[in-house]
Amino acid sequence: MTFQFNIHATDGRARSGEILTDRGVIRTPAFMPVGTAATVKAMKPGDVRAAGADIILGNTYHLMLRPGAERVARLGGLHHFMNWDRPILTDSGGYQVMSLGALVKMKEEGVSFQSHVDGSKHFVSPERSIEIQRLLGSDIVMAFDECTPFPATRERAEASMRLSMRWAKRSRDAFLLDPAPALFGIQQGSMFEDLRRESAEKLMETGFEGYAIGGLAVGEGQAAMFEVLDYAPDLLPADKPRYLMGVGKPSDIIGAVLRGVDMFDCVLPTRSGRTAQAFVLDGTLNMRNARHAEDSGPLDAACPCPVCGQYSRAYLHHLIRTGEILGAMLLTEHNVWHYQMLMQGLRDAVVAGDVAAFAKGRLERLAR
Amino acid sequence: MTFQFNIHATDGRARSGEILTDRGVIRTPAFMPVGTAATVKAMKPGDVRAAGADIILGNTYHLMLRPGAERVARLGGLHHFMNWDRPILTDSGGYQVMSLGALVKMKEEGVSFQSHVDGSKHFVSPERSIEIQRLLGSDIVMAFDECTPFPATRERAEASMRLSMRWAKRSRDAFLLDPAPALFGIQQGSMFEDLRRESAEKLMETGFEGYAIGGLAVGEGQAAMFEVLDYAPDLLPADKPRYLMGVGKPSDIIGAVLRGVDMFDCVLPTRSGRTAQAFVLDGTLNMRNARHAEDSGPLDAACPCPVCGQYSRAYLHHLIRTGEILGAMLLTEHNVWHYQMLMQGLRDAVVAGDVAAFAKGRLERLAR
Repeated sequence: MTFQFNIHATDGRARSGEILTDRGVIRTPAFMPVGTAATVKAMKPGDVRAAGADIILGNTYHLMLRPGAERVARLGGLHHFMNWDRPILTDSGGYQVMSLGALVKMKEEGVSFQSHVDGSKHFVSPERSIEIQRLLGSDIVMAFDECTPFPATRERAEASMRLSMRWAKRSRDAFLLDPAPALFGIQQGSMFEDLRRESAEKLMETGFEGYAIGGLAVGEGQAAMFEVLDYAPDLLPADKPRYLMGVGKPSDIIGAVLRGVDMFDCVLPTRSGRTAQAFVLDGTLNMRNARHAEDSGPLDAACPCPVCGQYSRAYLHHLIRTGEILGAMLLTEHNVWHYQMLMQGLRDAVVAGDVAAFAKGRLERLAR
Repeated sequence: MTFQFNIHATDGRARSGEILTDRGVIRTPAFMPVGTAATVKAMKPGDVRAAGADIILGNTYHLMLRPGAERVARLGGLHHFMNWDRPILTDSGGYQVMSLGALVKMKEEGVSFQSHVDGSKHFVSPERSIEIQRLLGSDIVMAFDECTPFPATRERAEASMRLSMRWAKRSRDAFLLDPAPALFGIQQGSMFEDLRRESAEKLMETGFEGYAIGGLAVGEGQAAMFEVLDYAPDLLPADKPRYLMGVGKPSDIIGAVLRGVDMFDCVLPTRSGRTAQAFVLDGTLNMRNARHAEDSGPLDAACPCPVCGQYSRAYLHHLIRTGEILGAMLLTEHNVWHYQMLMQGLRDAVVAGDVAAFAKGRLERLAR
């Protein structure tokens, strides 16, 4: 099982490289489209790949409820089930159990909850989370943790982080009984530098193939997130991938890459595509707006995606207004391309040694 | 402007050939997927073409309301607007004005009605219908008519048919002022052979590039429809395409091809794809049914479509159960392929001279 991270270039704290896996190369900085329920919503897998995605994310919580991890395993694993043969990272389910589940009860042993779908009762522990992710056939497995809610007192943040670190060790032990290519530990500690440091040290003691920065993008705002990212990535091993979970807007990603982050995931490009929002260099367009009704131009004249090459804003507006599924399909595809093109721009800029200028240019356009 | 119908083979009353147009060849018997609001719902145009469709249908009623015919014309016409460069047939709007519009008032001059979308008031006459279809850029324009409701008394059917014949003449006059490649007249007459004959004679007096059989598939049932098709197609010119509007189930199409029909359209494959129904050789599958949950096989082992090649029934069932857009996308794509493969089978069988055996085999499987 190959899992090798090669950094090809650095520029300030920003890095660009490749993660080699048996299912293909993941170019970093990488953005992972979210395939919650075994589908990147409203896109065919071939189109996700054509947009430039090297890896997608699957949600353990959703998949364990429907269709069920054992069922996915019987059907040949998640890759075969959903027709995506490249790498898949699965989250641990912890975050969504606690945000989407009902009657959630957390104990040292794990978390019991009721499904938001049918009220059925479930229990997830670090051991069960790893088992589920192995049943799915994940390439990058995530340790089971508690995403510390924001805001948190120091006491709450410390207790939560320490629980997550005990769970990280249990996740690692379970993982080693039946290893996948990679298990990532997740740093917690909320907005407290010493807790982030303690968390990083505990994770490194255990040892993982990669390290995520958790507990951000939970309502703290970009400035507070960047304050944490000013130190948190550097607390983690320089030679392993660093993954900022659930992030984010293009400006979030740019700022995080400048601070040494290598991997991202977020529902924003896909969810926006289903709510009439199109990402462009200057921000987002609401395609429901009547000002697009007669606009024969593309969403983004600089975008190389098939949507911008073949359809006008007027047509996309028409599809949105008439509630056509094709509207969600095309806006999602464009948005996924937009994110992948941003990552390609960041990778190229790091290699060229001008990531600061690239970031400045992009952020200025976004701020207009 | 090319519009040339060449019959390559006949087998009994069944015919197979090609309609040559400047936008491409239409192989007959042809099935036209319905692109109501400038989109074949839940499919990209490239995938519609890849399924084997040579021509699609656009709905004048929907397009005149949203985005509006003049707007489509300003945006380069329907082909450019929706990114479909092959032939498009547009209906006249008559049927849908009368079935979907509100406060419909019919006079000799035309039909006034209110939009089902926003209550706005509209008036469509034969002249305006032709103008709209020309603004859309249709390759095959349909004469404006009244689809006689079923059941109809002889008196009602006669009056309705004669009105449609006067409108057909007015449609032709309007069309000749600004011709497209083809205008099709529409035979009416309900279930009355002498009225169907009179209608055909009146249409031939005027002269059209093709002839539709209207007023069927309106609730009369397959047996009654076939009774009419036992004589109605033969009343129309043998050297022009015959188009049976709004038909139908695979068994309807098979029976109509045996009776000399060359063209079809129906929402069934696309609408079924959005309501969890998959067409297979033995009928339809309800993919919501739990019996598919663990089925690792394809929808149809004999189907060459990308969906059957890449996805299991279990996966499609999962997508339907979770309400994923991809479920509608993939079932629609399969269903459009299924219909196109049926047409290819019919064309091949006519050329091979064994269409009766082909039809018998298919109908027997459907009847199982």
